[in-house]
Amino acid sequence: MKVNIFVTLKDSIADPQGNAIHGALKQLDYKNVEDVRIGKLIEVVLGDISKEEAEKQLQEMCKKLLTNPVIENYRYEWVD
Amino acid sequence: MKVNIFVTLKDSIADPQGNAIHGALKQLDYKNVEDVRIGKLIEVVLGDISKEEAEKQLQEMCKKLLTNPVIENYRYEWVD
Repeated sequence: MKVNIFVTLKDSIADPQGNAIHGALKQLDYKNVEDVRIGKLIEVVLGDISKEEAEKQLQEMCKKLLTNPVIENYRYEWVD
Repeated sequence: MKVNIFVTLKDSIADPQGNAIHGALKQLDYKNVEDVRIGKLIEVVLGDISKEEAEKQLQEMCKKLLTNPVIENYRYEWVD
């Protein structure tokens, strides 16, 4: 079972890395780029457990280790 | 127009950050995690251009600035 976890900064949190890339794209003459935000993509392969159990574990993992709930949001998507 | 760009390391490239997270998850007793790979999620908002033009610009941006084609793959997904 494979799952993609998307971790993004909350909207209220400044994103200096995104701003830097935005600036660089402007300098490269991509004038119609309006905003850039950078997040993380975490691809996790899970062994032999039920989908329910996997969902439960995933939520725990995200809260305990993979994200910082104070400044980040996450969502995930089963790949297969 | 919003687009999500997913940048991942090629399969043949070692991912020490992913390995570190895999190790940490094991120590937290998530024994059925088989693999972890870390990538980047780049959310880009584009202004008023046609979809064709946007596609062309996106591919250019990815090759020139957003990814390292030697070690990374990318794909993207239109959000709206």
